[in-house]
Amino acid sequence: MAAPQNILVWNENVHESRGDETVLGIYPDGIHSTIAAGLREHFPDATVRTAVLTDEEHGLSEEVLAQTDVLLWWGHVAHADVQDEVVERVKRHVLGGMGLLVLHSGHFSKIFKSLLGTTCSLLWRNEGERELVWNVNPSHPIAEGIESPIVIPQQEMYGELFDIPTPDDLIFISSFTGGEVFRSGVTFTRGRGRIFYFSPGDQEYPVYHQAEIRRVLANGVRWAAPATRTRAVPDVGNPAREWFAS
Amino acid sequence: MAAPQNILVWNENVHESRGDETVLGIYPDGIHSTIAAGLREHFPDATVRTAVLTDEEHGLSEEVLAQTDVLLWWGHVAHADVQDEVVERVKRHVLGGMGLLVLHSGHFSKIFKSLLGTTCSLLWRNEGERELVWNVNPSHPIAEGIESPIVIPQQEMYGELFDIPTPDDLIFISSFTGGEVFRSGVTFTRGRGRIFYFSPGDQEYPVYHQAEIRRVLANGVRWAAPATRTRAVPDVGNPAREWFAS
Amino acid sequence: MAAPQNILVWNENVHESRGDETVLGIYPDGIHSTIAAGLREHFPDATVRTAVLTDEEHGLSEEVLAQTDVLLWWGHVAHADVQDEVVERVKRHVLGGMGLLVLHSGHFSKIFKSLLGTTCSLLWRNEGERELVWNVNPSHPIAEGIESPIVIPQQEMYGELFDIPTPDDLIFISSFTGGEVFRSGVTFTRGRGRIFYFSPGDQEYPVYHQAEIRRVLANGVRWAAPATRTRAVPDVGNPAREWFAS
Amino acid sequence: MAAPQNILVWNENVHESRGDETVLGIYPDGIHSTIAAGLREHFPDATVRTAVLTDEEHGLSEEVLAQTDVLLWWGHVAHADVQDEVVERVKRHVLGGMGLLVLHSGHFSKIFKSLLGTTCSLLWRNEGERELVWNVNPSHPIAEGIESPIVIPQQEMYGELFDIPTPDDLIFISSFTGGEVFRSGVTFTRGRGRIFYFSPGDQEYPVYHQAEIRRVLANGVRWAAPATRTRAVPDVGNPAREWFAS
Repeated sequence: MAAPQNILVWNENVHESRGDETVLGIYPDGIHSTIAAGLREHFPDATVRTAVLTDEEHGLSEEVLAQTDVLLWWGHVAHADVQDEVVERVKRHVLGGMGLLVLHSGHFSKIFKSLLGTTCSLLWRNEGERELVWNVNPSHPIAEGIESPIVIPQQEMYGELFDIPTPDDLIFISSFTGGEVFRSGVTFTRGRGRIFYFSPGDQEYPVYHQAEIRRVLANGVRWAAPATRTRAVPDVGNPAREWFAS
Repeated sequence: MAAPQNILVWNENVHESRGDETVLGIYPDGIHSTIAAGLREHFPDATVRTAVLTDEEHGLSEEVLAQTDVLLWWGHVAHADVQDEVVERVKRHVLGGMGLLVLHSGHFSKIFKSLLGTTCSLLWRNEGERELVWNVNPSHPIAEGIESPIVIPQQEMYGELFDIPTPDDLIFISSFTGGEVFRSGVTFTRGRGRIFYFSPGDQEYPVYHQAEIRRVLANGVRWAAPATRTRAVPDVGNPAREWFAS
Repeated sequence: MAAPQNILVWNENVHESRGDETVLGIYPDGIHSTIAAGLREHFPDATVRTAVLTDEEHGLSEEVLAQTDVLLWWGHVAHADVQDEVVERVKRHVLGGMGLLVLHSGHFSKIFKSLLGTTCSLLWRNEGERELVWNVNPSHPIAEGIESPIVIPQQEMYGELFDIPTPDDLIFISSFTGGEVFRSGVTFTRGRGRIFYFSPGDQEYPVYHQAEIRRVLANGVRWAAPATRTRAVPDVGNPAREWFAS
Repeated sequence: MAAPQNILVWNENVHESRGDETVLGIYPDGIHSTIAAGLREHFPDATVRTAVLTDEEHGLSEEVLAQTDVLLWWGHVAHADVQDEVVERVKRHVLGGMGLLVLHSGHFSKIFKSLLGTTCSLLWRNEGERELVWNVNPSHPIAEGIESPIVIPQQEMYGELFDIPTPDDLIFISSFTGGEVFRSGVTFTRGRGRIFYFSPGDQEYPVYHQAEIRRVLANGVRWAAPATRTRAVPDVGNPAREWFAS
């Protein structure tokens, strides 16, 4: 519940490093830089860092994670290139209390699928449709200060069936021009870690420049931040405990 | 889990008895008769009865309820005319195990609001929009045999925010031409009773003639049916029980 | 998520005003005073008030409630004496966003039963058993700083079946000397209001003097506090809204 | 919802094949045989098979799984010996609709941890304590016909914190002589598959000979059985679907 002090935005950064002109036109310094800039507006006293796939250990070393309160994850075409060893390390930190925000096409990341246990598949179509993001949970802290619906003029469509376990909290449901619907803002708890998946945001549309979207991400970071940075994966085992009955 | 033997379809029957030509053109014998006919197709061995507001005790006497496995409730303009004493009686039977399906504008019925504790208000607009009913819970028995989405050519729009508690199961989410979304198929458990709310179905559109809708209602009735007709409202109190410790 | 500024502790105060010596021996100024003292330790900058059944309008006027962020409710033998009009008023404020903590025998209060829709009955036995309160939700803010289990040397036993809807969050499960178990810390959301039920605490045992119990209550108050004191019962209706499609 | 026709009971069978006298005294033909015998009492028309770790492909070939409606899993000391390839195969079948019952020390099996995403660790102590299994969900089909509590005279203690995601349904909570509590009967849905974890049952105590335990397992099998044996892992992707808007 404490304000997050160390936030880390991870991006595979593949579209950008390949020189995709559409993406670079919208996110000249990479999606991660835009997301980080939005978070700095909301958390002026926090340290907001970024890391990318090509960094050593993907920028996700034990030391970095141990200092991170909340990690944001954006990936798309390079999920398979993330090393399993790093995924296991991130997972351990989430189970131990680190907050995790999984964004848009991150639904297919190894870390998300490993934490949820399902395929995390969904329906999709990229034709620049309007997305309306409706709030169905008005007192949830992640929805604080957000008018319903958020209107995103152009977006990739993500539709049901979204193959996830029943979320702890359903906060946002989106509709698209084509008529599809999507559970676009959902939370999960795994171990001591809080996870928020938020689907709006694509490399081809300027979604992460939109003020309401930045507010949702900031709310999500605040919600997911742990009370303490000390990691404690649940593991009680068979302690030499005296019976309460004795 | 046993197949329901006694099903009761309740309808306020006010639009029909007033002689509303639109409604009678679609439901010449009343909405309840059409719903009951659909259920008889699916439960040929069950007894499917109907009751209306003007029946004595609204057709919901102690004797009738004691024999009812599942009650379906359709109301719209006469919620206030349902006697509080009858509402309490129905509630007692639901808490004791009777299944309840609340349909469409029944969201504002006294029985639904009393069981859920919220206003059950929602956004609405009646302009004959297309409704798409998407399944987000594919292995739920209420969705069995239903292709997603169900397409309803013309419907009243019901939109979020739907002021209900978090449902036990979210099965269907609808979108409408105007872009709104709605949690259109949701379940709740109260006491020993199972409750299914399903929004598609209006007096001005032939929704209850549609085969998929009839299938959903039949699935809902089967799901809500109790294992036994004996009512047992939870009430454990302070029995003269010996300690397990002694 | 803001820190609560105005907290109101309500107690029927009947055992105390009757002069029950056991109760007055433990709570000489009433249970409400002890609970309020505990909250003042945790919220030195907040205003913590108390109100009792014999106050005008039970001390729960429209003006008082409009200023209250979180209301705590303790009742036992006088549930029936609380006026229905006041219950409806409190309920409207909860649905509009006021936090509510329902304590111990408050499970049978009109306000709790009205918000939950069930009988809220449970198993009970008063023989001074030891209660162990186990945390099953370690990252929940209501459990922050609490070692598991909390040991309460002597308590009234509350056991399952506790007839409540499935809670949003299950935080604590208790066991008792006799072997019974009880969902002793559970949350619900109704409308915009957050509700926390916490069972430890009886008029015959000094539970509200125990530091861990005071911490749980403070955590609960912080969790239940709304983002804004402006009440807004969900009621969207049929606004003159343009279609998003147009 | 159809009655299961093909049930498969899997047991690592290591205690038994090692010749552990305590275990063989209680389960002379292996734990799997006793569990299977109990299921045959409840499903006389079904085929109940068994498989063990030393079978080829652990007895869990593609062909076998394709015919299986519900798989029961008992493992303890040999979790690490189950091949990852087989675990992935079982997982695919669960996501595609096969029911899964995970029993007792199976909480640490690869398949359970992979489906849930958490450590699934718990507190334990083996001193032959009495376990009381309380029903907190009286209308759940898995509790049908079960008196609360089930009394198990001697058992290994499993206690909280049980590191699992919030279950879809919480059905049973146990207490032990030592005062610990445990969420001993919980359900999850992953993909199209239904999962029931039930903790009572150890190799050193005759729990699977007890009639109430056998009834719970049979209820669980009936609840977890899919509507169809055709496996369909959710994977909607980007079908050549026309817009509903067009």
